[in-house]
Amino acid sequence: MSLIHTWEDKIELVDKALDSFLPGIEMYPGKIHEAMRYSVFAGGKRIRPLLMFLACGLFTDRWQRALPAACALEMIHTYSLIHDDLPAMDDDNYRRGKPTSHRVYGEATAILAGDALLTMAFALLSGTEQYKNEYSEAYQSEVGPEIGLKVISELAEAAGSLGMIAGQILDLEGEGKTVSMEMLDDINSRKTGALIVASLRGGALLGEAPAGDLQRLSVYASLLGKGFQVVDDLLDVEGDENKMGKQTGMDRKRKKATVVSLCGVTKAKSQRDTLYNNAMQELSPFGESADELRQLTRFIFYRDY
Amino acid sequence: MSLIHTWEDKIELVDKALDSFLPGIEMYPGKIHEAMRYSVFAGGKRIRPLLMFLACGLFTDRWQRALPAACALEMIHTYSLIHDDLPAMDDDNYRRGKPTSHRVYGEATAILAGDALLTMAFALLSGTEQYKNEYSEAYQSEVGPEIGLKVISELAEAAGSLGMIAGQILDLEGEGKTVSMEMLDDINSRKTGALIVASLRGGALLGEAPAGDLQRLSVYASLLGKGFQVVDDLLDVEGDENKMGKQTGMDRKRKKATVVSLCGVTKAKSQRDTLYNNAMQELSPFGESADELRQLTRFIFYRDY
Repeated sequence: MSLIHTWEDKIELVDKALDSFLPGIEMYPGKIHEAMRYSVFAGGKRIRPLLMFLACGLFTDRWQRALPAACALEMIHTYSLIHDDLPAMDDDNYRRGKPTSHRVYGEATAILAGDALLTMAFALLSGTEQYKNEYSEAYQSEVGPEIGLKVISELAEAAGSLGMIAGQILDLEGEGKTVSMEMLDDINSRKTGALIVASLRGGALLGEAPAGDLQRLSVYASLLGKGFQVVDDLLDVEGDENKMGKQTGMDRKRKKATVVSLCGVTKAKSQRDTLYNNAMQELSPFGESADELRQLTRFIFYRDY
Repeated sequence: MSLIHTWEDKIELVDKALDSFLPGIEMYPGKIHEAMRYSVFAGGKRIRPLLMFLACGLFTDRWQRALPAACALEMIHTYSLIHDDLPAMDDDNYRRGKPTSHRVYGEATAILAGDALLTMAFALLSGTEQYKNEYSEAYQSEVGPEIGLKVISELAEAAGSLGMIAGQILDLEGEGKTVSMEMLDDINSRKTGALIVASLRGGALLGEAPAGDLQRLSVYASLLGKGFQVVDDLLDVEGDENKMGKQTGMDRKRKKATVVSLCGVTKAKSQRDTLYNNAMQELSPFGESADELRQLTRFIFYRDY
């Protein structure tokens, strides 16, 4: 069985569900829905939804119940990218090989499209009538309101001013300044790590994981989040612009502290390998049921885009 | 009994709870929490929390249970003002007599402070551990998870791309263009009306209102939302800048369609009076229990700031 194949199926499912939830561009006002869709379907790797499915799947065969929550994760992730790319923030012109939202729709619409995606994530998770369809009905019927609230809480906490938003503000503040390895570690655990942790914890909650397993997955998730960021930093130095769909060398240009700028490529790679081994270690008690998650872990640590 | 006095008590309670929930400026990273607090405590009238309390109070003596949801409403309202004031949107320098967020903290922080307040509203409503205190514990213990989810859904729907965000984008698109009275009515019902409707419906849900009463309050809320906007439009023409804490005459300067620009001051006032009478009519079945809500309604329709 090709695992790549099953990833593709899961990604297709997420794309289909995202398309079914997001208002069509014929929905008034069309411009905001066009901008929301533009960024959501701009070629994301859907890593967070996959992590959520696989975490859920460790505890139940019915991992598809996580679909609306996986879509909510991707909406939150996409909103964060739209806002990060704004002229007032990182001022990026391209993302995944396509012009960024504000370049296509203007700043006002880009800000509002981000706001709308963030808001929609919580509408979806709370069962808003507006977005009712077969996927959300399955979610309502399989996921009790207590767990539903916990998943919302998990995502909101990760995305908030002590999580992802803290990471972004610290990242901006750190540009051109001396940053210690410890500070960088903290910035990354918030900016990238928090939502990855929420993907795995959210999935485990939806699978009704026992507390011990939830704790173990949190440790794994935190290692994975760190590794994800080290690989991003490495790719900004060594990556192929065509494959990545964005300019490389931007961290140096912005004088941004990264694992690579602080300790060099060789040490960054050895740090990546250590994180990989430790993350895999945390998965060992799950046995064969975690094979797909292992394969995704390997992809995340050794990807070239 | 002075009703004004009980408003003040309720407003004081909201302010105290907002202060208890919002991370302090000593919480790392301090800048984001400072910016969040700056706008939340910039002198808002707390009309939406009051509406929520009063709607809840129609059905239960324990209206204080609505406190975290009332704070969440105020966070969503504040986020929308921060983003609306941005240079890419309305480009306002003052709000309630104080410099706007981006003027004090810069655009990047203002965008992120808005994002963080929106996110925190949903964290609060879902019982995130992070914000646990006596108020949120009372909410958890009195409000079941089904109703908790419904309140989240109500607020997320109102704030989303078919509600408040739609209103903002239509408002921006309409500047300098010919807008019919019907279009204007639609813009206003989204931009201002949606969150006011959610305040009252959310309060009624928290009071476990019967379906018929919920429906009646929705009609009242929609009339109130329209009236709120007509008064805003009138104040932009006739209001006292000192009392209002912001420049008047801005709608004309921006060539914004308003009720006043479309049909003049006299007709706008008679429209306001009709909306007021119709709104009061919807409250009559609630008898004396709605007296405080009547007084707030009168304030909203005939305020001078």
